[in-house]
Amino acid sequence: MSERKNGFPLFGQELQLLNLGLESFLDGPRAGGTAVVQVDWRPPLPVDPDLARVIRAEGEAIDCANRLVLERIQAARPHLVGLSTAREVVPGMTENTFLHAGPPIIWERMCGPMRGAILGALLYEGRADTPERAATLAASGELQFAPCHEHAAVGPMAGVISPSMPVFVVREETFGGTVFATMNEGLGKVLRYGAYGPEVLTRLRWMASTLYPALRRALEASGPIDLRSLIAQALHMGDEVHNRNRAATSLLFRALAPALARTAPEGSIAAEVLDFINGNDHFFLNLSMASCKAMLDTGRDMPGSSVVVAMARNGTDFGVQLAGTGGRWYTGPAEVPDALFFPGYTRADANPDIGDSSITETNGLGGFSIAASPAIVQFVGGTPADALDYTLQMYEITAAESNVFQIPALGFRGSPVGIDVRLVVDKNILPFIDTGVAHREPGIGQVGAGVLNAPAEPFVAAYEGLASHLAGTPRA
Amino acid sequence: MSERKNGFPLFGQELQLLNLGLESFLDGPRAGGTAVVQVDWRPPLPVDPDLARVIRAEGEAIDCANRLVLERIQAARPHLVGLSTAREVVPGMTENTFLHAGPPIIWERMCGPMRGAILGALLYEGRADTPERAATLAASGELQFAPCHEHAAVGPMAGVISPSMPVFVVREETFGGTVFATMNEGLGKVLRYGAYGPEVLTRLRWMASTLYPALRRALEASGPIDLRSLIAQALHMGDEVHNRNRAATSLLFRALAPALARTAPEGSIAAEVLDFINGNDHFFLNLSMASCKAMLDTGRDMPGSSVVVAMARNGTDFGVQLAGTGGRWYTGPAEVPDALFFPGYTRADANPDIGDSSITETNGLGGFSIAASPAIVQFVGGTPADALDYTLQMYEITAAESNVFQIPALGFRGSPVGIDVRLVVDKNILPFIDTGVAHREPGIGQVGAGVLNAPAEPFVAAYEGLASHLAGTPRA
Repeated sequence: MSERKNGFPLFGQELQLLNLGLESFLDGPRAGGTAVVQVDWRPPLPVDPDLARVIRAEGEAIDCANRLVLERIQAARPHLVGLSTAREVVPGMTENTFLHAGPPIIWERMCGPMRGAILGALLYEGRADTPERAATLAASGELQFAPCHEHAAVGPMAGVISPSMPVFVVREETFGGTVFATMNEGLGKVLRYGAYGPEVLTRLRWMASTLYPALRRALEASGPIDLRSLIAQALHMGDEVHNRNRAATSLLFRALAPALARTAPEGSIAAEVLDFINGNDHFFLNLSMASCKAMLDTGRDMPGSSVVVAMARNGTDFGVQLAGTGGRWYTGPAEVPDALFFPGYTRADANPDIGDSSITETNGLGGFSIAASPAIVQFVGGTPADALDYTLQMYEITAAESNVFQIPALGFRGSPVGIDVRLVVDKNILPFIDTGVAHREPGIGQVGAGVLNAPAEPFVAAYEGLASHLAGTPRA
Repeated sequence: MSERKNGFPLFGQELQLLNLGLESFLDGPRAGGTAVVQVDWRPPLPVDPDLARVIRAEGEAIDCANRLVLERIQAARPHLVGLSTAREVVPGMTENTFLHAGPPIIWERMCGPMRGAILGALLYEGRADTPERAATLAASGELQFAPCHEHAAVGPMAGVISPSMPVFVVREETFGGTVFATMNEGLGKVLRYGAYGPEVLTRLRWMASTLYPALRRALEASGPIDLRSLIAQALHMGDEVHNRNRAATSLLFRALAPALARTAPEGSIAAEVLDFINGNDHFFLNLSMASCKAMLDTGRDMPGSSVVVAMARNGTDFGVQLAGTGGRWYTGPAEVPDALFFPGYTRADANPDIGDSSITETNGLGGFSIAASPAIVQFVGGTPADALDYTLQMYEITAAESNVFQIPALGFRGSPVGIDVRLVVDKNILPFIDTGVAHREPGIGQVGAGVLNAPAEPFVAAYEGLASHLAGTPRA
């Protein structure tokens, strides 16, 4: 605006219009040749005015709680310390427990790819010998479906974790928490995108019989790997550690390969394992997610805090958890991402957004740090300038800048971290998320990758939920 | 300037000064409070006016020759195809041949670190058993010292290659040339920085006895590695492949590790080799240099071309070769870089600029692509904005933009490639180079890393040399 005004005397100039809000108001004047200026402002998200008054009245207390939450998150140091099986280490895991991504959901409401992944896990566990019998068992009420997040775990896409699956053990060294995640299967037909054919099960079995013991031995020999440091380096190397993990996977590969070669029973097994990791640039994703959860979990259960500690989707609902509202999920319908689809697929094939991987955005990475990874936004038709804009916008809704994760293209500024649900509501700016896209039918797999903004509904619900908590009258 | 004029009537305003050339002319008016504008313009480098007339008269022919040179350079595809020893494969190599970086130089004029590296090579080859006897032999006239560049090779810093040393074999697949380079020794006390103590010789022997056969076997098993593609990816991952090679080394490591594990006689040897490469983020540098020379060599011997095909320093002289003037070196004194010095060292310890590694800048990488690697300029106290400015300035003196190497921070614009010596002279903009800094005494090693602009003298000489060639009267 200041440039437009330069050179014009205050009076006696041509008519100019300045517009706040809906840009379409300017269509008429613009068509008529009038100079117009659109101001980037949106009305806040609509919330209960009584609850908004509570939030405003408690402003300083909330700020204080948020500061404590961010201090903890910023002090957290996730390390990869080992591998085990879900059965042995995941809290609350039973032979009938099947964990999934996102907020809680019953079988009847599960989307196609999540159903597909559950079927695949039942076949993998030997609980059924055909997909049809697996579906009958899944619908029988005999199994317990539960969110990964409620069992100290995270999973990408469908995020299914069953008792026999090997898991990474990520320990947060400052406060002492532990988070679990499966090993990434690679691309193509894979369980996490809802595929459950023979090649999916064969790969899962190889991962359990060969990859898992080899990596476990290597890690025992190499000692813990500092994942926070590794992610910080990867951000300097073009990753945002959600949709792009090429650098992080390379650095992890370098850290593991010498110990793998040293401890494998024979060279051919070390080579097989190294080929598998080298063939999958997303191998680091599950560790990125576990690291982010491990960091964010340090901020949980801080009374009064409006900081988001989890965003997760089950393919039907998008769920949000706040530091100030315990284990309560605030949900709304998940939406279909803007995506680049693989040949032969269209938006009509796409399942709504799915997976725990938005834990990276919750921790200021992924879409929040897309300026560090312009190749991502270019992939869906944007420019590096768009990537900068997306990241700059995320500073508008976050409470802090990371003390360890930096964005080179912004002069090594710390990444935007600590989503404050008050800022989301007041500014009507929704978290920006990078994502993969699954086919809506079970058994097919990935059909694209893209970006989207989170839906508004869970944030409005979380805002009102926090206000109710603060007012001492939690809403039903 | 346009912004400054906005809002001011044409007459009746305060005095403003516009200055071209020496900025110090503005010091007085500035001190007096007068508004001043400095225009970024410098007088051309001073050249013989008769020869400048020749260059101008032949402008279209030179443009045409340059286009052909750039077409070849852009079509070149360097691949790592194998390893061997210098004795077996480097053209013209004899038992008395000791190659060095930069333009030709006799023992008496060699700088400290180059002398140190020659002494080390003589000890390594078993030609002497003490540094003193090695120095006597080096000064005896019995040995042949010659530039790497004149034997299809390149070497970083002192760049010494002796007959027994293992070398990478880089084949340019489009036109069929081959370039050789030693394996990078790592940091600290190393031969290329002029150190020649027992730990230097022990490491060189381990490299010949263990690293070399292991890598050779791995590469035979894996097949050729496309280095152009690898460099293009590394530019997307924060490397400029001169002073920063972390991503390229990681990608090379990933490409080699499975085959290494598969072909090593035992796991512990594979592990030792992987530990060595993993411990040296500059391992890729020598391959980056060989790739750049392989690409640029395709443009050599194009009559009339003003494109620079080599910039190289021997620590005493800075040498330039043009596509249009055959093997002729144009030289001037090498300068001391602006550097960040290691603790305990200062500029007084620094040797003038040394090494063939400026072949990366000649090929549009290194300092020319520093915008892809802002961590480099930050290292010596600059900002990412400075890095952008340096790269943008290099487009001013280059004839083309790369069709394969891209700079993410500039919207994935092709890197500036093909230095046109006419533009260097006319615009008085000198190539910007990233570099390591060696101690000026032999036997000590690296004391820092930094950046500098090439000296003017070799470019003036090359410009005049090309004009003489074109006029049919080559200058003596």
